[in-house]
Amino acid sequence: MDIAVDSYGETRATELALFKASIEETIEWLSLFGADASGGVTRLLYDASWQEAQSTLAQRMLQLGLEVTFDEVGNLHGILKGSHSHTGAIVTGSHIDTVVHGGKFDGTYGIAAGMIAIQHLWKQYGRPKRDLHIISFCEEEGSRFPLAYWGSGYITGRYSLAQVPEAHDLMGISLLEAMTAAGFGAGTNSPKLVPEGIHAFIELHIEQGAVLEQEKQAIGLVQGIVGQKRLTFEVGGIANHAGTTPMTMRSDALAGVAEMIQEVEHRAKAYGPPLVATVGSLEIKPNLTNVIAGHVTFTLDARHANSSELAVFCEALITGFDEIALKRNLALSYKEWMDAAAVMLDSGLTQQVEVICQRNKLPYRQMFSGAGHDAQLMQSICPSTMIFVPSRAGISHSSEEYTSSEELAVGILVLKDLLYELAYHEH
Amino acid sequence: MDIAVDSYGETRATELALFKASIEETIEWLSLFGADASGGVTRLLYDASWQEAQSTLAQRMLQLGLEVTFDEVGNLHGILKGSHSHTGAIVTGSHIDTVVHGGKFDGTYGIAAGMIAIQHLWKQYGRPKRDLHIISFCEEEGSRFPLAYWGSGYITGRYSLAQVPEAHDLMGISLLEAMTAAGFGAGTNSPKLVPEGIHAFIELHIEQGAVLEQEKQAIGLVQGIVGQKRLTFEVGGIANHAGTTPMTMRSDALAGVAEMIQEVEHRAKAYGPPLVATVGSLEIKPNLTNVIAGHVTFTLDARHANSSELAVFCEALITGFDEIALKRNLALSYKEWMDAAAVMLDSGLTQQVEVICQRNKLPYRQMFSGAGHDAQLMQSICPSTMIFVPSRAGISHSSEEYTSSEELAVGILVLKDLLYELAYHEH
Repeated sequence: MDIAVDSYGETRATELALFKASIEETIEWLSLFGADASGGVTRLLYDASWQEAQSTLAQRMLQLGLEVTFDEVGNLHGILKGSHSHTGAIVTGSHIDTVVHGGKFDGTYGIAAGMIAIQHLWKQYGRPKRDLHIISFCEEEGSRFPLAYWGSGYITGRYSLAQVPEAHDLMGISLLEAMTAAGFGAGTNSPKLVPEGIHAFIELHIEQGAVLEQEKQAIGLVQGIVGQKRLTFEVGGIANHAGTTPMTMRSDALAGVAEMIQEVEHRAKAYGPPLVATVGSLEIKPNLTNVIAGHVTFTLDARHANSSELAVFCEALITGFDEIALKRNLALSYKEWMDAAAVMLDSGLTQQVEVICQRNKLPYRQMFSGAGHDAQLMQSICPSTMIFVPSRAGISHSSEEYTSSEELAVGILVLKDLLYELAYHEH
Repeated sequence: MDIAVDSYGETRATELALFKASIEETIEWLSLFGADASGGVTRLLYDASWQEAQSTLAQRMLQLGLEVTFDEVGNLHGILKGSHSHTGAIVTGSHIDTVVHGGKFDGTYGIAAGMIAIQHLWKQYGRPKRDLHIISFCEEEGSRFPLAYWGSGYITGRYSLAQVPEAHDLMGISLLEAMTAAGFGAGTNSPKLVPEGIHAFIELHIEQGAVLEQEKQAIGLVQGIVGQKRLTFEVGGIANHAGTTPMTMRSDALAGVAEMIQEVEHRAKAYGPPLVATVGSLEIKPNLTNVIAGHVTFTLDARHANSSELAVFCEALITGFDEIALKRNLALSYKEWMDAAAVMLDSGLTQQVEVICQRNKLPYRQMFSGAGHDAQLMQSICPSTMIFVPSRAGISHSSEEYTSSEELAVGILVLKDLLYELAYHEH
């Protein structure tokens, strides 16, 4: 881009104003589908709101002049063919499914931003060399079916349509039934549209954390996605009368768990970032005011960018739990039910985004994503990266989720520049 | 009782063998009414099992030769008229209503033991001077209606039939409806049978704690019943993503509550007996593995024999909670919904029981009852006392509740001796 600094600055201001107006309009428009009374959005995979939103998105992509297709599971693809299609596509995308009472930005932002960026590039620079390809993935959240990343899992071969995973929603409806009822399934549409030869995948997303906001950074360069372990612990004491059992004669399961929760917090803080560890859920029996708790079940969610460091942390923590249980005469058992390895994203793409930030004088930082994203699956088939913009107070999965239009526009600018470099400039 | 030591020892052994056989039979017989699959007993006020048990008890009292009457609310009275009735009755009693899946001994023991003791005294010594009067009280537990001590409350004037308290069971049935359906209510039976002039009230009960067992004491002399406070605390933090929120940026309501629970335990242990304080119940929102808890409600149950010491302890504890909340940037509010003053029982009666224990060479200790009992209401109208026997492992309100027949027999011996002294000996 041989634009003199002055005129470049001017161009950038014009672009940002344009992106700001466009993203405001697009986010508001999409938030109407599945709008709920809480001020948030509920769009669950294959439900009426999700279907309506995907269909309307498809129409808008058609209006933009893209080639539009659904694949067999319901991922929506919009393609702007390049002059050198055989050199591999540049793919961007995210998802429009939400959690129950979710926000307007999680996922949706990446789709809206991708459409705006591609529209702008086409208008500005004409047909690209490589294909520009946008995907609205199915069920990233796993909020209807316990099968997060179903759409990107299908595209990357983690899941296959020949063997649809057994998954049911809370009403007992199977994934297969719901998919069929929504008009998808084997033979209904094109098979997966992104086979070999993707050149790169880029996902633009809100941070869902407060790090960028607190450090006043405009852009997060996502080096990787943390590994996660999830465990459930059972602690057994003796349920007894709260009035007649002296303090020294108790086997109070809840008091023991309280000490374990303190231990989690203490060790996680001492270990330092990017480690996070959370006890978010407890089940207490009998859970009565006047009975000492006899049995408590609690969950642990622990994450770190390095899977082996995560394992070491969890092992030491469990040893600490064992000591607490022993000291308090409590029984302790546990089960690990999730162990997702950390995924490193493509460092070359991260460097490209860094250069774009520097050129645009945007404050940025490198960081890990503490949440999972479709990008971690896409990284298994092509170089992938993620770009984060700030989330106000780090709040996500809530109607309170918010990022200003100015911040959203800056993210689109960076995405647009990266797509330009990858699809128009390189060869 | 002018019995030589040798022959007294012999007599005692004979009596204990008799009481052991009788209490085994009576407890087993009563446990058939409302026997549940857990091996425990469920008899809720005015339900079929309770009605059947009260009626059958009435028949057995009749067979013993007592004058038997129900009062208007369903308390069952059995009276052995004394030769000097006007000098006031000696009343013993307890309750046969249970918690859901309760044990065979709580309450029931006091009724069974009272019948056995009165039968034995009558057979041995003939008609007493004072009336011997046994009462099976209604709804001591408050397990069907949130109105514990309804029966003794009626007798002592805390509650009146003219103004039946508004109370409903979990099915929405009112106390008045249930009472009427069971054949009780205003005008159905004698009005309260224990007006003025009760000379003393004695309640024999299992300890429901493990102190006697651990100290190898046969008898607990109950000096009083502890005061109780019950409070509910609400702690507000910020529900946020467990993966994307660094440890240092959290307002984790559950981590804060864990520290508060530790504080309760720490302060209660430091304060020392007879203070006990328990957090037995928590409600967490959203209570999900991967979301930092935004809101936690928890209860505190605190008890002490001295009401003002209890108040001081609770005030200091709440100050401690405030400091934890402040430090962690959490909102804290609370509501006290129970504040029952401690009740001192009659020290003269305690001394009489002590002398009986010494004479019978029974190991005993003075103690407070950490649980509430009908005796605390009776103390408001007459000198009252309680006698405890050990509970295995302190377990109560459970099918695991157990006291050996030998220990139960020793309690009956002490009750019998006290009833003898009060009803036959004194004047």
